[in-house]
Amino acid sequence: MQPVLISGVWTAADADAPSFHAWNPSTGAALTDRFPISSGADLDRMGSAAEAASDALASADPDLIRDFLLGCAEAIEARRSEIARTAHLETGLPIEPRLAQVEFDRMIGQLRTAADAAADTSATGWRRPLSDGPSDIRSDRGPLGGAVLTIGPNNFPLAFHAVAGGDFAAAIAAGNPVIAKGHPLHPGTGLLLAQCVAEALQASALPPATVQYFHHCSPEDGARLVRHHGVAAVGFTGGREAGLGIKRVADDVGKPAYLEMSSTNPVFASMHADSEEVEALTEAWVDSITLGGGQFCTKPGLLIVIGHQTADRIASLAEARLRTCDPGILFSESGRDGFIAGVGACESAGATRRCGGASVDPGWRVEPTLLEVDGENARRSWSVLSREVFGPLGMMVRVEEMSTAIELARMLEGQLTATLWGDPACESAWRPLLRVLRPKCGRLLERKMPTGVAVVPTMVHGGPFPATAHAGYTSVGLPASIDRFTHARCWDGVSASLRPSWLR
Amino acid sequence: MQPVLISGVWTAADADAPSFHAWNPSTGAALTDRFPISSGADLDRMGSAAEAASDALASADPDLIRDFLLGCAEAIEARRSEIARTAHLETGLPIEPRLAQVEFDRMIGQLRTAADAAADTSATGWRRPLSDGPSDIRSDRGPLGGAVLTIGPNNFPLAFHAVAGGDFAAAIAAGNPVIAKGHPLHPGTGLLLAQCVAEALQASALPPATVQYFHHCSPEDGARLVRHHGVAAVGFTGGREAGLGIKRVADDVGKPAYLEMSSTNPVFASMHADSEEVEALTEAWVDSITLGGGQFCTKPGLLIVIGHQTADRIASLAEARLRTCDPGILFSESGRDGFIAGVGACESAGATRRCGGASVDPGWRVEPTLLEVDGENARRSWSVLSREVFGPLGMMVRVEEMSTAIELARMLEGQLTATLWGDPACESAWRPLLRVLRPKCGRLLERKMPTGVAVVPTMVHGGPFPATAHAGYTSVGLPASIDRFTHARCWDGVSASLRPSWLR
Repeated sequence: MQPVLISGVWTAADADAPSFHAWNPSTGAALTDRFPISSGADLDRMGSAAEAASDALASADPDLIRDFLLGCAEAIEARRSEIARTAHLETGLPIEPRLAQVEFDRMIGQLRTAADAAADTSATGWRRPLSDGPSDIRSDRGPLGGAVLTIGPNNFPLAFHAVAGGDFAAAIAAGNPVIAKGHPLHPGTGLLLAQCVAEALQASALPPATVQYFHHCSPEDGARLVRHHGVAAVGFTGGREAGLGIKRVADDVGKPAYLEMSSTNPVFASMHADSEEVEALTEAWVDSITLGGGQFCTKPGLLIVIGHQTADRIASLAEARLRTCDPGILFSESGRDGFIAGVGACESAGATRRCGGASVDPGWRVEPTLLEVDGENARRSWSVLSREVFGPLGMMVRVEEMSTAIELARMLEGQLTATLWGDPACESAWRPLLRVLRPKCGRLLERKMPTGVAVVPTMVHGGPFPATAHAGYTSVGLPASIDRFTHARCWDGVSASLRPSWLR
Repeated sequence: MQPVLISGVWTAADADAPSFHAWNPSTGAALTDRFPISSGADLDRMGSAAEAASDALASADPDLIRDFLLGCAEAIEARRSEIARTAHLETGLPIEPRLAQVEFDRMIGQLRTAADAAADTSATGWRRPLSDGPSDIRSDRGPLGGAVLTIGPNNFPLAFHAVAGGDFAAAIAAGNPVIAKGHPLHPGTGLLLAQCVAEALQASALPPATVQYFHHCSPEDGARLVRHHGVAAVGFTGGREAGLGIKRVADDVGKPAYLEMSSTNPVFASMHADSEEVEALTEAWVDSITLGGGQFCTKPGLLIVIGHQTADRIASLAEARLRTCDPGILFSESGRDGFIAGVGACESAGATRRCGGASVDPGWRVEPTLLEVDGENARRSWSVLSREVFGPLGMMVRVEEMSTAIELARMLEGQLTATLWGDPACESAWRPLLRVLRPKCGRLLERKMPTGVAVVPTMVHGGPFPATAHAGYTSVGLPASIDRFTHARCWDGVSASLRPSWLR
């Protein structure tokens, strides 16, 4: 059974500890390695070790933190093909270009950018050092005084991984220790990444409990860890129910929890039925909803088309294109079952299935699926029809009037993204809809699909509840993503020798 | 019975609505004006009106918002003496210099600074406009898409007032409508301020529901208003129990609630017993804990002295000085009773009373009170002894070793402030304590008391839970206080004509 990393030491679980294994989603076969489900006692030890580490880390030289993050990138880079192969085996995502290139480079790039940010003590960096001479009052941002518990999703086994992804990089850059929980669907990938990070940590002068790692735990023990006084915040990307569960626990003890939970990422289309934009939109939409098996958090699952003739053409084109797509491989058996059930729930709520909807052997494959619903049914059953279904499902809503589209937009929950797609000349017609959509989403797009999330300083991968737990933040894009794991500090009349170097 | 302000119209409550009146804390006499306790139906109307107003406000010209805030300042300024007299009558706070000068100027100054911030579309303003040319992705901060419900405290009837204070100014500057709840202990002051703001609103082109105002409501109807889809966030300053109640409701519906709740603001003193600093510290501490009847949120209620000889001198000097102080006038009868009970609870937990502890006629006066406790008792009953008691109470904890002080510091909850006070030469001795305190407080001070909260851009009036609900923010100091009432927005490939002017 694989060990866990507690306070710098790879530690075996008790011999009789419960355990689990991963599956190959492409075949449905069980994988052989066994991983422990950690006990509450082991998690308590991590919490206590992190508490001590956070004192030391908070006053560590920023260059040490930079070097550690660079060391992580280097150690991970050295095992690129092994990591990509393992992630492929456990997730069914393609090695090339997705895992070995695109997502791998993104993970490595984030670590390196975070390393730069860690060492950045300038006025424009995340520390935001500010001095008011006359009052002798200064301010900056600093670490939280406890560990960040990071919990990554099933759908980005590298770039969002708890022990090497964006939350990890941001939390460490700010000088917080990390307790990372692996994802039970790709434990082998997580172990490799954690080994690389542990190796980089050993080569650095940072405290051994700077990063700790475990594979899985019960929800109860997870809640207990959130409450542990050595844990100061949570960074989570995953499903809505799990996220809401963490939110309840964190809220109760007053700890910030940055949770990316669910989003259906509506696209609003308004164009002439014979416009070239019809083909452009449809092609982009079908590609976007089938990407990665339709399991992107930014999958544009909902397409609201204004005008029935336009809707007819889009539906025909989309159906034809979807019928040529390969089945999507979902990450788990329960994910496949959830997809089938989600399609069924939409049909029960008045949607019509144009294609797809069935599972396909071998493994956990499902057919790319198109549903269609009219404005009246959509209005009536909006909470079901506008809810995220994980997998290659597109829901097209046809309305005749912009006013109906606006009405539906008003009924939307908070979203990661919303997209406008129209003929180039008709921007002004979007204004009333834009006013409704703008405060409902983190990222607004025009004439492009939201599945590409560029890692640039202007990115906002966030949005109002329940897309995330707090619309003031982004989990992608440095240095802004670091903000989540800092608190606002003021130094009022404090001697220079007691202030950090960037405030002297 | 006084009316409430709904969607631009001063509206009478139902004739049979429940009502309340204020008291004069200096005499204990009831004041004659009656104010309605608003019905859930009236609050629903405010929520719905705010929803419509938020669309219009979000696209209002920043200069209009600036002008409205300046108009508020002007209208309030014109009634300075009437407002200060009424606030004095309802709170017992002195007119000069406190209400008519210090706090009034602070309120007016905040409105004017917020007006400047509202119009500031520069890269350094709260909108933080940022463009990434190659990716055609831009970001900024924008309003929330619903009203901010502001709820002010009893202790700053002007500068923190829901309808004219810091939260109001910050929420409006960001382009959000405000629904302001008056404080039941100073409803006449609130009515005057709301009249001024309504007058300024009428002279502006902003929507009539930009500001709405009510005097009081039941906790159940308040919770219902927090849940209303026209309300997007809460700004609250007040007591811990009320704050936690709001937090539970807001957390449940995923809305941000910025709550300033409670803080005991520890001061750590380490100096030679014959140092001049002993007098300087003691004088500053006694003045600070008795200021405004000891009812400042930043009252340094806890003084931890390292060294028994030093503690002996401080206790003697503090006791002598406190015995010459006038009784403190508390804001309410229940506040007075709470103070007496709080002193009693500390005594039961092992503290010794050196002076004070009794109520004094007329009105709701209490004696300035000094309690003392040793490190052993403090450690044993820390959760009682380190909890905020509203009123002129100082608790001195005497410990022999710095290590005991550090141990107590580790056991502290989150604080608005923490203060170090020592001989000038001994800064390096503070380092281990500083490491523990820094993540536990928003503002760290050295050799000054925390009751002065300068309105400067570097101020952080905030801190980890339960001092506030989120340590990432400040409620004082512009433009940072505006951050609370914005969300992070990204514009990905969006045409210039659809972007705000500062992103073109």
